[in-house]
Amino acid sequence: MKIRVGILGATGYTGAELLRLLVNHPDVEITWLTSEKFSGRQISDVFPHLKGLLDIECNSVRRFNDLSDTDLVFSCLPHGTSMHFVIRMLDAGARVIDFSADFRFPDIKTYENWFKSKHKYSNYLKEAVYGLPELNREDIAGARLIANPGCYATSVIMGLAPLIKSGLVIPDSVIADIKSGLSGGGRAPSLERHFSEANEGMGIGSVSGHNQKPEIEGIFSGLAGARYRVTFISHSAPLDRGILATVYSRLTGKMTISKIRQIYKMFYKDQRFVRLLDTGIMPFTKNVRYSNFCDIGLAFQEDVLVSAVAIDNLGKGASGQAVQNMNIMFDLPEIEGLGPTAIYP
Amino acid sequence: MKIRVGILGATGYTGAELLRLLVNHPDVEITWLTSEKFSGRQISDVFPHLKGLLDIECNSVRRFNDLSDTDLVFSCLPHGTSMHFVIRMLDAGARVIDFSADFRFPDIKTYENWFKSKHKYSNYLKEAVYGLPELNREDIAGARLIANPGCYATSVIMGLAPLIKSGLVIPDSVIADIKSGLSGGGRAPSLERHFSEANEGMGIGSVSGHNQKPEIEGIFSGLAGARYRVTFISHSAPLDRGILATVYSRLTGKMTISKIRQIYKMFYKDQRFVRLLDTGIMPFTKNVRYSNFCDIGLAFQEDVLVSAVAIDNLGKGASGQAVQNMNIMFDLPEIEGLGPTAIYP
Amino acid sequence: MKIRVGILGATGYTGAELLRLLVNHPDVEITWLTSEKFSGRQISDVFPHLKGLLDIECNSVRRFNDLSDTDLVFSCLPHGTSMHFVIRMLDAGARVIDFSADFRFPDIKTYENWFKSKHKYSNYLKEAVYGLPELNREDIAGARLIANPGCYATSVIMGLAPLIKSGLVIPDSVIADIKSGLSGGGRAPSLERHFSEANEGMGIGSVSGHNQKPEIEGIFSGLAGARYRVTFISHSAPLDRGILATVYSRLTGKMTISKIRQIYKMFYKDQRFVRLLDTGIMPFTKNVRYSNFCDIGLAFQEDVLVSAVAIDNLGKGASGQAVQNMNIMFDLPEIEGLGPTAIYP
Amino acid sequence: MKIRVGILGATGYTGAELLRLLVNHPDVEITWLTSEKFSGRQISDVFPHLKGLLDIECNSVRRFNDLSDTDLVFSCLPHGTSMHFVIRMLDAGARVIDFSADFRFPDIKTYENWFKSKHKYSNYLKEAVYGLPELNREDIAGARLIANPGCYATSVIMGLAPLIKSGLVIPDSVIADIKSGLSGGGRAPSLERHFSEANEGMGIGSVSGHNQKPEIEGIFSGLAGARYRVTFISHSAPLDRGILATVYSRLTGKMTISKIRQIYKMFYKDQRFVRLLDTGIMPFTKNVRYSNFCDIGLAFQEDVLVSAVAIDNLGKGASGQAVQNMNIMFDLPEIEGLGPTAIYP
Repeated sequence: MKIRVGILGATGYTGAELLRLLVNHPDVEITWLTSEKFSGRQISDVFPHLKGLLDIECNSVRRFNDLSDTDLVFSCLPHGTSMHFVIRMLDAGARVIDFSADFRFPDIKTYENWFKSKHKYSNYLKEAVYGLPELNREDIAGARLIANPGCYATSVIMGLAPLIKSGLVIPDSVIADIKSGLSGGGRAPSLERHFSEANEGMGIGSVSGHNQKPEIEGIFSGLAGARYRVTFISHSAPLDRGILATVYSRLTGKMTISKIRQIYKMFYKDQRFVRLLDTGIMPFTKNVRYSNFCDIGLAFQEDVLVSAVAIDNLGKGASGQAVQNMNIMFDLPEIEGLGPTAIYP
Repeated sequence: MKIRVGILGATGYTGAELLRLLVNHPDVEITWLTSEKFSGRQISDVFPHLKGLLDIECNSVRRFNDLSDTDLVFSCLPHGTSMHFVIRMLDAGARVIDFSADFRFPDIKTYENWFKSKHKYSNYLKEAVYGLPELNREDIAGARLIANPGCYATSVIMGLAPLIKSGLVIPDSVIADIKSGLSGGGRAPSLERHFSEANEGMGIGSVSGHNQKPEIEGIFSGLAGARYRVTFISHSAPLDRGILATVYSRLTGKMTISKIRQIYKMFYKDQRFVRLLDTGIMPFTKNVRYSNFCDIGLAFQEDVLVSAVAIDNLGKGASGQAVQNMNIMFDLPEIEGLGPTAIYP
Repeated sequence: MKIRVGILGATGYTGAELLRLLVNHPDVEITWLTSEKFSGRQISDVFPHLKGLLDIECNSVRRFNDLSDTDLVFSCLPHGTSMHFVIRMLDAGARVIDFSADFRFPDIKTYENWFKSKHKYSNYLKEAVYGLPELNREDIAGARLIANPGCYATSVIMGLAPLIKSGLVIPDSVIADIKSGLSGGGRAPSLERHFSEANEGMGIGSVSGHNQKPEIEGIFSGLAGARYRVTFISHSAPLDRGILATVYSRLTGKMTISKIRQIYKMFYKDQRFVRLLDTGIMPFTKNVRYSNFCDIGLAFQEDVLVSAVAIDNLGKGASGQAVQNMNIMFDLPEIEGLGPTAIYP
Repeated sequence: MKIRVGILGATGYTGAELLRLLVNHPDVEITWLTSEKFSGRQISDVFPHLKGLLDIECNSVRRFNDLSDTDLVFSCLPHGTSMHFVIRMLDAGARVIDFSADFRFPDIKTYENWFKSKHKYSNYLKEAVYGLPELNREDIAGARLIANPGCYATSVIMGLAPLIKSGLVIPDSVIADIKSGLSGGGRAPSLERHFSEANEGMGIGSVSGHNQKPEIEGIFSGLAGARYRVTFISHSAPLDRGILATVYSRLTGKMTISKIRQIYKMFYKDQRFVRLLDTGIMPFTKNVRYSNFCDIGLAFQEDVLVSAVAIDNLGKGASGQAVQNMNIMFDLPEIEGLGPTAIYP
């Protein structure tokens, strides 16, 4: 029997990508989807590229109280809003994969510090599993609530996790410089992402801080077994999709690059979506566009290690990873619906 | 003494380009500028690229009733709004160059048909001069009110005026297919021009009609001395600036391309901003970006004449042309402030 | 048993797209592929996005004389070169889908006029089937040699075929204005398509003629049962993929748009890849990117009919269409491997 | 009397930008220019945007032995080639501004290490002045030979020089992460910069090292009076122009951002092309496009100082800076020909 899926807030970019993947997925049936803004309209009016591929109406979330025929809910709602509906869905008996940051921090204080608002569901916080399969596959399998990782966090964590876990990185030496395409900023029109403003420009995000900084720090601290801080800045580049993370770190001792590569190979053994590039090759975002791949390149510049990571911000950085989590949760082959999709040019 | 200039609605893209040109203009002093939205803020807050180049505050238009120290007002206000302020400025003694369509149609009915609203200033309509210097230089010189042409109309008219005036084009055979960059759609955020929507896409404007269709028809009818219709469709391309107009027409008799070129050469004799390209060369928008140039290429495909025209939609298509008009009105060298500015790449 | 496929000249953009589609195709096994330039190297060295998806070596075409284990050969070789290898493959017993123009013209004179070179295989010319499934499905099914249509030709033919066949279009009134993304120009580096030259520019192709003009004229003449000419010009826009064709025509009599839509609906009945858009909606290339869809919008501007068509130049315009042809030739479901793939943004 | 200028290798992108600036410059006459590839052709054939603006023929460098009527030569020739012609020009009596790296290193060993080739002109190396006016204005004024800085080096040096000179930066803590537009890679076609390869992609340059790394280290070492190393990696973004440098450093002691801003203000006092942005504002490359501006933003993230710098790689990063140097050498106002040119959008 197919997994019966509902989607909260399906009309943004993570929703669009999720729909594309689920329409292709042999074991999924999209049962319902919500949009307050487009309630009553066909999804193919909102996304004309889906015309002929998906005939389903957007409805208000208020319509979905009885979830007896829903196995899984994806929430693409924004931070702060999502938690309320996630809880409601859980309480109605569905499992949930939440794209927002609302359940990413086991520690409620971190959440409240960064988001400047109260979090009322601390017990669920503890239950939630951070949905990075390459780290937490087993917990994901049995989870009721998945906190789907942030796109920037995914790239940085994937790029350095093997060394952090090995205890080889000097604490606080890590600088993560992110370059991201503009779909990461969402579909709501704004001056900043108006075509003639953003096109042909490179900009820099908040220096004082982004909420995915503590997300990374939390995971690294867990892996290292000690408090970890990172310097983290994101930049915007004029492209639709793609994240290139350049992660600089210093190691506790001298190591060769081939020894480091061995550590990565071991750590990512049998991970189908991780591609460790050959020595001397660095990742390029266009090679992972529209896929769930995570390409990693490693090199030293003198004594600084550079781990460069490319992912698609809506793929491995969001909806692709969510589908990967779903596959694990429902005991399906992990690549189902995420199969060979790399597209070029 | 410098021309003292005021600008209505200076914070859009035509305003930005006008400011750039006027800041460089040796005979102009920007006295005031208006913006309802940014009233009270420095223009360099609105346009950070002007930081250090122009220190002037945006103010509400309500502040500017006494125009005794203003020689010329540019109105960058939208259609329908502009007319009311243009009249006020004229009545207060300033000359005006209006970027909107409000005074482009000598015939009030055409305006009201296309804009579906009343036009209360029919007497001013008659006085207004259509500001295409290559056609109307003498009238522009003495005008009090200039209707600055539309960007699409400029490209199409420039591309075919010599033949229309010569009576060589079969009436109603003209098809104008426009490709335009996205700054032509203005600076107000919209889903259609949101980066990740517009980028990597080619779209098509309204087929049922655009108000620059009757604008072209009016000018062609005047040149031909007979009623003229054109088929006109605009398309959007993912670039900041540039219009490429491909104008198809059929001629009343057999002609060689070299004879046609002679007609164009004669017609555009001494027109500094028109570049008739060599036989076999077709225009490319990037060659006119950020300039007031109008590049024209001519060729036959069998018996269809193709006149292809490239302009910068904010240059010759808007603010550059407005400055050219100003120079003529104030008896300055026509290229002043519009000097060698072509930029590549 | 799977279809055993060989690919000639697999390392350009049509090759890249074909590989992506075939890797996803459940009934295909890629047996061999050729590249003179990259002979001896892994295809994933040439196309790093395929790393982990396809492990096969490029070899010289000289290696493949025995085709006893090859069912079908795709030739992505250039015009003029392709015919020699196509013939060799046919003679060795394989069926062939040829991407070049070498077998698109039943009439050898048309080929020789446009390509200025001799064509030595006139008997094969007659056998070849023009691979546009919406017109020639039955002939395709049994064909040994398919001439896969040109990308521009596909868009224009799809946009007007129903009316041409109905005899409703005034002969020679058709003007096809094409806007195309830059991957259509191939992967070989050139100044014209160097990033900083092509980016932010709109240009125009040869006015004197393109070889897809007679291709369209040939098909239209066949449909109308009379000699047909079209005016045809292509333009380049700074995007990777997509063709927007704006086709202007005049009809032999007055017709309503809803009557015309009925003709299209009937003509394209059960055609899975044709999406006739609702009245008032015009196609946008981004809605068909990476898919085999062909979106068609229809509207009048006064008495000129505008048929606007969007396809992906490498999808329905090349490799997607080739896979569609393969499915028909091998009696597979027509959408196999071409399933729901529309991607946005 | 005007400065009589010759240009070596004028047909690349730095040449194009230099020509644009010099055509606008009131005190310069372009006397000759060379191109081996386009010898005998008009420069407006090579750069059609210059049609009507500059009528001068490209010639082989072999033609220019008598420099009695040349005051200044700009060399836009590549590294390794440039030095030979620079010396010849100097010996013939002209002053020279060299865009290549050939004379940027006072120490011949650094050059030979990085470029893996012999440098035969060590005496000229010592005479050459590093042409960064904000550091070396006085030496530039009297120089015969200017080594025009690299574009990346300019951005990084401008971003940290005030603190390096003050001795406040922990040695070897500096990490410079560069994002650059693609015109920086020159005009010669290559697969890497072919439109459909580079578009929509973010890539990373050589990790093992770029020759502008030792260039920065040399200048920093000079300013600090001690040996300085930096970690330096460049990235490519799909835009024509612009560099965004994000420079991370750690300071020797606790400092407030306002104290640091004071140091920058003092250091860059009266520097017309440096714009120190207000607290909280970070630079955006589009605000400096086509200008000689250098926008600097400063902020802390915890104890890491982030200096972000935006320049135009062909402006302040190459040709604009060269013209600035020329103005200083010939005792002209420093902004002449570089006046208010910021363009948006």
